[in-house]
Amino acid sequence: MIKPHMVIGVDLGGTHLRAALVNEDGRLLARERTASGSALAPEEALRRLTAQCRTLITAARADGARVAAIGLGAAGSIDRRAGRIVHSPNLPRLNGFLLAPALERELGLPVFLENDANVYGLGETWQGAGVGIRNWVGLTLGTGVGGCLIFEHQLWRGDDLGFAGEIGHLPVLPGGSVCACGAVGCLETLASGSALARGVTAARDRGQILGPALEQAADQGRITPLAVFQAARAGDSLACELFATLGWALGVALAGLFSVLGIRTAIIGGGVSGAWELFEPSLRRALRDQARMFDPQLARVKRAALGDDAALLGAARLALDALANRR
Amino acid sequence: MIKPHMVIGVDLGGTHLRAALVNEDGRLLARERTASGSALAPEEALRRLTAQCRTLITAARADGARVAAIGLGAAGSIDRRAGRIVHSPNLPRLNGFLLAPALERELGLPVFLENDANVYGLGETWQGAGVGIRNWVGLTLGTGVGGCLIFEHQLWRGDDLGFAGEIGHLPVLPGGSVCACGAVGCLETLASGSALARGVTAARDRGQILGPALEQAADQGRITPLAVFQAARAGDSLACELFATLGWALGVALAGLFSVLGIRTAIIGGGVSGAWELFEPSLRRALRDQARMFDPQLARVKRAALGDDAALLGAARLALDALANRR
Repeated sequence: MIKPHMVIGVDLGGTHLRAALVNEDGRLLARERTASGSALAPEEALRRLTAQCRTLITAARADGARVAAIGLGAAGSIDRRAGRIVHSPNLPRLNGFLLAPALERELGLPVFLENDANVYGLGETWQGAGVGIRNWVGLTLGTGVGGCLIFEHQLWRGDDLGFAGEIGHLPVLPGGSVCACGAVGCLETLASGSALARGVTAARDRGQILGPALEQAADQGRITPLAVFQAARAGDSLACELFATLGWALGVALAGLFSVLGIRTAIIGGGVSGAWELFEPSLRRALRDQARMFDPQLARVKRAALGDDAALLGAARLALDALANRR
Repeated sequence: MIKPHMVIGVDLGGTHLRAALVNEDGRLLARERTASGSALAPEEALRRLTAQCRTLITAARADGARVAAIGLGAAGSIDRRAGRIVHSPNLPRLNGFLLAPALERELGLPVFLENDANVYGLGETWQGAGVGIRNWVGLTLGTGVGGCLIFEHQLWRGDDLGFAGEIGHLPVLPGGSVCACGAVGCLETLASGSALARGVTAARDRGQILGPALEQAADQGRITPLAVFQAARAGDSLACELFATLGWALGVALAGLFSVLGIRTAIIGGGVSGAWELFEPSLRRALRDQARMFDPQLARVKRAALGDDAALLGAARLALDALANRR
């Protein structure tokens, strides 16, 4: 009797390493979670990941199944052929680390590595808001803005240069702020969690009087995206304006991408997308104002469906697809 | 004996209707050309096209071949399934005209219709600067800015909404000029022949003293892209500045598209691309400043190779591909 195949999907996050055992139907059967943090060293990351995977391999065995491969999603730029993390903004000590081969040696299983926003796209297209949608643009709004492109139900990798779908670095406001990438006016400078926090700091620096909630957060040195979200929910005008700008920037970027790509669907996830009602109106307004190639009524801008599970399921899907391509 | 297949490729231009007999190897065997013009009525366009095609069908027969299909390229928005010209900026009386079915009835041959920039992409990918390049972005700089996307050596049609590759309508300068499409700050408002001419008029309107060549052109009501080109070649500072802006806008747009698509090649054609040396430096500078996802040295920005023949060969290729898909 052939044992059923399972895979492990791993999300290498800046605060936690999460892993899940996933079957071929996309069911999440067991989960592991352990702390990470910006000081995490490569050897320790490898040790923790190996332990998580071993626990899940044992769980699979108890189910009469075997784990066939492991998929990893990580923020930053990835050399997926080598399995190397080239630049890791959240786990900086992993920069340059050949993670996939190291984990392969520990576990004796094939390991595949991909950018986290691309993994999100694979997850949502397999089990989430992208099911059955042939072509879509994916965005993840977190500290930065991640992006992916799903074309013909597949993850688009372009010329395989080590990045694709970097929608956060589409210029939307020439002459605007300098982005973390070094360019000017990228979508990420207006539509990320960092942009929200920076917007408050900038307003304070130019002498604007903050509302009481933001003033208190500023005094405590805690102007977080969550603080801006809570202030906006309580009606703070600066916070509301920052979310309106975030929505405007998304709308401009999506109008451009829809016109260029001739497609009509976007799926938005990531932590900041939890503030949906705060930025959706201005997003739709900008889309309507900028989208002249097509009836803006046709545009479908949807919320992601899987939350954090998109990363786990997408990493699992990455492993399944890679196995299928090897055969 | 099976007679060799040939096809006819037609370019419905604003000043001329051009047609060519093309064999399956992409050789252009005979050409026809007749005047068009913005007053051209649908019946007359149909009559002239029918006459051109009949001449080429006869030429094919004399060669012992037979014409199997006809491909048409036209500016504007196209309903390619119905074979209808939806909106024709250069030949406005053809708006709404079911051109392909009408020509099919006249000739008893299958006729396929596509947007002119997409046809340019098919032509260059078959016989021009795009040969052997898996993924590229195409731009045609004329009165407006046309665009196309070639993915996996194929013309990308997205969700088949009636447009794709509308790179001219990518926003590059929010708060900039209103585009012909109604949106603000599109690439076309800065990187087209119209933008060059409008830049001179705008400078004059705000009281700027024009150089002698442009002043004379303005007095004669003839501020054409060609006049701006000639003035720039002669060192006119305003004209040079307009070409530098055109290059900057192209560089910003391409940096964004390369980052989003994860590809590295663009091929630029159309009449205004003849002024290559006037805008290339600022294009490369903007690309270098904006392209942070990848080494800008990797970017390949090439001139189109086929000139006006791209439209004829691309329309022929459209017909051949459509026949192959039917079989």
